[in-house]
Amino acid sequence: MSEEARVVSSREIHHGRVVHLFVDTVTLPNGHTTALEVIKHPGAAAVVPFLDSDTILLVRQYRHAVGGYLLEIPAGKLDAGEAPERCAARETEEETGHRAGRLEKLGAILTTPGFTDEIIHLYAGYDLVPTTAATEPDEDLTVLTMSFADALSRVEHGEITDAKTMSALLLAARARDRARA
Amino acid sequence: MSEEARVVSSREIHHGRVVHLFVDTVTLPNGHTTALEVIKHPGAAAVVPFLDSDTILLVRQYRHAVGGYLLEIPAGKLDAGEAPERCAARETEEETGHRAGRLEKLGAILTTPGFTDEIIHLYAGYDLVPTTAATEPDEDLTVLTMSFADALSRVEHGEITDAKTMSALLLAARARDRARA
Repeated sequence: MSEEARVVSSREIHHGRVVHLFVDTVTLPNGHTTALEVIKHPGAAAVVPFLDSDTILLVRQYRHAVGGYLLEIPAGKLDAGEAPERCAARETEEETGHRAGRLEKLGAILTTPGFTDEIIHLYAGYDLVPTTAATEPDEDLTVLTMSFADALSRVEHGEITDAKTMSALLLAARARDRARA
Repeated sequence: MSEEARVVSSREIHHGRVVHLFVDTVTLPNGHTTALEVIKHPGAAAVVPFLDSDTILLVRQYRHAVGGYLLEIPAGKLDAGEAPERCAARETEEETGHRAGRLEKLGAILTTPGFTDEIIHLYAGYDLVPTTAATEPDEDLTVLTMSFADALSRVEHGEITDAKTMSALLLAARARDRARA
């Protein structure tokens, strides 16, 4: 039994602004041939921006797909050829109006590998300096300041449900606990 | 400024096995009108199955979208009208061959709210009893036993990157830390 799948054919269904959808006919490693939908994504980066050791910035943003506003960390798609850390720095500045003097990698998530290759690289941002936010007109963003403890409590109580935001906050909390241990 | 977006029109692009894609023309709460892609998803449930207090089950599964095998907790889509907890119980049994005597809610994640409404309800499963796994032919699954500590270490070291798996393991670890404090 092979460890690799073999793509028999690939058909482009839609090439939009965010969603680039293909239906692939694939022979799986177990020998079974099936049609699988794949959304190709350029990847993204997201940052927990620490104003000080106990205070972070979050963005409140309207998300049409879920029909409401979400609390999220600043994030955005990689530009063509852009390194994840460069994207993380750019999105922090564009969305929060603060430049991070230092970024530390927290990890990365595959958001939903059943149908997309989207990966989001996660960072903590430190040594923030105010600049000028340059929000795009399609982004309906408000920047909020919140204690890190409050944000973690909201993760635990289901008030922050965005996967990248939850994962990054929980990873940052564990990194902090390890540093203190 | 309204708190609600207004959908001017909605066009179905693709209705496949997993991906049900629409392009909506939307007037955002900030008054800007734009075309937004939305993948409608039925929702899903996922479970961290605890064999004992220090040991969990994971599934190793080929994921065509990311071109390789991933370590994940058992999970699957909600059937029409199915309650998340019922789905969590069913998927645990189908994928691991163990029935959970008790499920505790850990939380829920929105996997990638920029383009889908997919929500995954997260549970911890206890009091496992072996049954018979009934894997579907499109699922190329292997069940692994791993210490909870090892799984958490893999989350921290980027070896487990699936968002639902990371989030569920990190939430379970925090719940455990709180119970011990």
